[in-house]
Amino acid sequence: MKSRAAVAFGPAKPLEIVEIDVAPPKKGEVLVRITHTGVCHTDAFTLSGDDPEGLFPCVLGHEGAGLVVEVGEGVTSVKPGDHVIPLYTAECGECLFCKSGKTNLCVAVRATQGKGVMPDCTSRFSYNGQQLYHYMGCSTFSEYTVVAEVSLAKVNPAANHEQICLLGCGVTTGIGAVHNTAKVQPGDSVAVFGLGGIGLAVIQGARQAKAGRIIAIDSNPAKFQLAQLFGATDCVNPQDYQKPIQQVIVEMTGWGVDHSFECIGSVNVMRAALECAHRGWGQSIIIGVAGAGQEISTRPFQLVTGRTWKGTAFGGVKGRSQLPGMVEDAMRGDIQLAPFVTHKLPLDQINEAFDLMHEGKSIRAVIHY
Amino acid sequence: MKSRAAVAFGPAKPLEIVEIDVAPPKKGEVLVRITHTGVCHTDAFTLSGDDPEGLFPCVLGHEGAGLVVEVGEGVTSVKPGDHVIPLYTAECGECLFCKSGKTNLCVAVRATQGKGVMPDCTSRFSYNGQQLYHYMGCSTFSEYTVVAEVSLAKVNPAANHEQICLLGCGVTTGIGAVHNTAKVQPGDSVAVFGLGGIGLAVIQGARQAKAGRIIAIDSNPAKFQLAQLFGATDCVNPQDYQKPIQQVIVEMTGWGVDHSFECIGSVNVMRAALECAHRGWGQSIIIGVAGAGQEISTRPFQLVTGRTWKGTAFGGVKGRSQLPGMVEDAMRGDIQLAPFVTHKLPLDQINEAFDLMHEGKSIRAVIHY
Repeated sequence: MKSRAAVAFGPAKPLEIVEIDVAPPKKGEVLVRITHTGVCHTDAFTLSGDDPEGLFPCVLGHEGAGLVVEVGEGVTSVKPGDHVIPLYTAECGECLFCKSGKTNLCVAVRATQGKGVMPDCTSRFSYNGQQLYHYMGCSTFSEYTVVAEVSLAKVNPAANHEQICLLGCGVTTGIGAVHNTAKVQPGDSVAVFGLGGIGLAVIQGARQAKAGRIIAIDSNPAKFQLAQLFGATDCVNPQDYQKPIQQVIVEMTGWGVDHSFECIGSVNVMRAALECAHRGWGQSIIIGVAGAGQEISTRPFQLVTGRTWKGTAFGGVKGRSQLPGMVEDAMRGDIQLAPFVTHKLPLDQINEAFDLMHEGKSIRAVIHY
Repeated sequence: MKSRAAVAFGPAKPLEIVEIDVAPPKKGEVLVRITHTGVCHTDAFTLSGDDPEGLFPCVLGHEGAGLVVEVGEGVTSVKPGDHVIPLYTAECGECLFCKSGKTNLCVAVRATQGKGVMPDCTSRFSYNGQQLYHYMGCSTFSEYTVVAEVSLAKVNPAANHEQICLLGCGVTTGIGAVHNTAKVQPGDSVAVFGLGGIGLAVIQGARQAKAGRIIAIDSNPAKFQLAQLFGATDCVNPQDYQKPIQQVIVEMTGWGVDHSFECIGSVNVMRAALECAHRGWGQSIIIGVAGAGQEISTRPFQLVTGRTWKGTAFGGVKGRSQLPGMVEDAMRGDIQLAPFVTHKLPLDQINEAFDLMHEGKSIRAVIHY
């Protein structure tokens, strides 16, 4: 079938809106009509050409919501008409990782997903006969996309797709990191580095967890208003200080914060986030994705004196088990999604959504088909 | 009073056995007669001059056992004749850290201990009228030493001092790291880097915890026999492989180990230990003390894909609460101490104990007075 799509034909080029061919879903696969998709920094990172695993030409996009159109052989968990969120972190329930109960890092489709193809090692996308790669198992920048059954969360059909598409990545990652990875407890202190979509979601999660003090850190003070709306108790601009930001946070709190979250992807900020964690028990969670080949460093004394360094992917959330509940939370207002949607654009204007993000003007620009 | 002591008059010089003056214990302090002391790599590190916090002249030693001789004003928890182990990690029970229930890193005497003096900022040691610094709050290389009350664990008087002195540092650190920091569970896999006293103690702790596979790693295969005695199931010499040791361990185990322990103090080994931890949930515990200014590094992807980097000091053990129980464990044979004591030397031969350690010939040389 034909589908409108924003295709990345090569690194560092604008996306082109074209009509591509989408092949029917094979065994264990599902054809989904995407209704809305967010544009995330990870899409921009791959599009820039800096992602060493980036493959071109491809159909980017991994933060979407849509409806099941057709299911392939053997698919039983969803049917045409179901409302779904595609998952870049699958949940098969069968692999070593799913069965461990300790992680959401399912490996069912990991190898082929990383190669831009479906589990049978082929693509469902082509343009003028040329194969296009899939992206993160989702490719939500095509109106019609094919994803693995294990990569689909079935959600409440009454939910607002324009908002819940954001649960496909950034908001879930931030909120999940608070609850699943850090396990923030009532009264705990929290520092959030970077007030984009993920950082703001961390703040929401911290407020849900009844954190006592939530310190929001960004060099763009225009972000502080929304941070405060979501629950930040203190807002800090590192440019207002001569000393390292970790020292500022430690002095503000006495011994550092119980939990810090890096939501930028800067290895220098990751170090600062670790080093502002409380002596004895503070932990720092890396959420941001650093550039290729970059490394984090610190003195081991930081860990020997009781700090813990962790990371998280998709906030530790098991998509098929937990995302439906987070959609319900959003419908009840326990997760606020509307403030994240700062811009709404049709697919034709998707390159503007990237521009808005790069300029720091949007939290999320949501694309509708 | 007079006391025989091995004094470090300057960096990188042999200790000198001399008679020093020991002043009486002040308020909150206790005079202890040391009967036995181990010689640990940390003593050697400070003696070498590489420790930026090292102060000279000083009385080193921090792994001892002895008897209370005299108590200062206000001391109530011990009395003359009590058998004690000095603690370089105090436990006051009153500070923010002790009350947290989350860490053993008491700060009661931390500031002055780091400056080589007692809590009133003065020293109890002198030689020919010249002040000598204390060391780690213990200074077990003097037959008579003064320590803070909060830095003394009172233990079973029937215990063998020649062995339980090792619970003052290395053995407790290794065993504690397994139970308190890593919380190893039955069936878990463990990798131990470095088979000195701490590494061997980690192996004992892992066996106590009923770990399924215990991989012992050292470039000196002479250490493997004792490692196996204590419970190692696999022994690996990195020099037998062309590829990085983390890759060797990952290939041996499929996805890496549940827990790894760095017991050397090498930042390169710390990285290897982290990177051989299991994707999704593996954790790596830094125990070794790295050289001044050295830093650990890795790609943040290692953490984002579920590995956790931690450290531990004194194995997370709260000395006054928990050490008496570990002494009982040793008396029952649940902790084996005798195999650690490879050499027994009188104080006059303490420099030989350092030589044996540097040459890799001893696990622990225990000094008796």
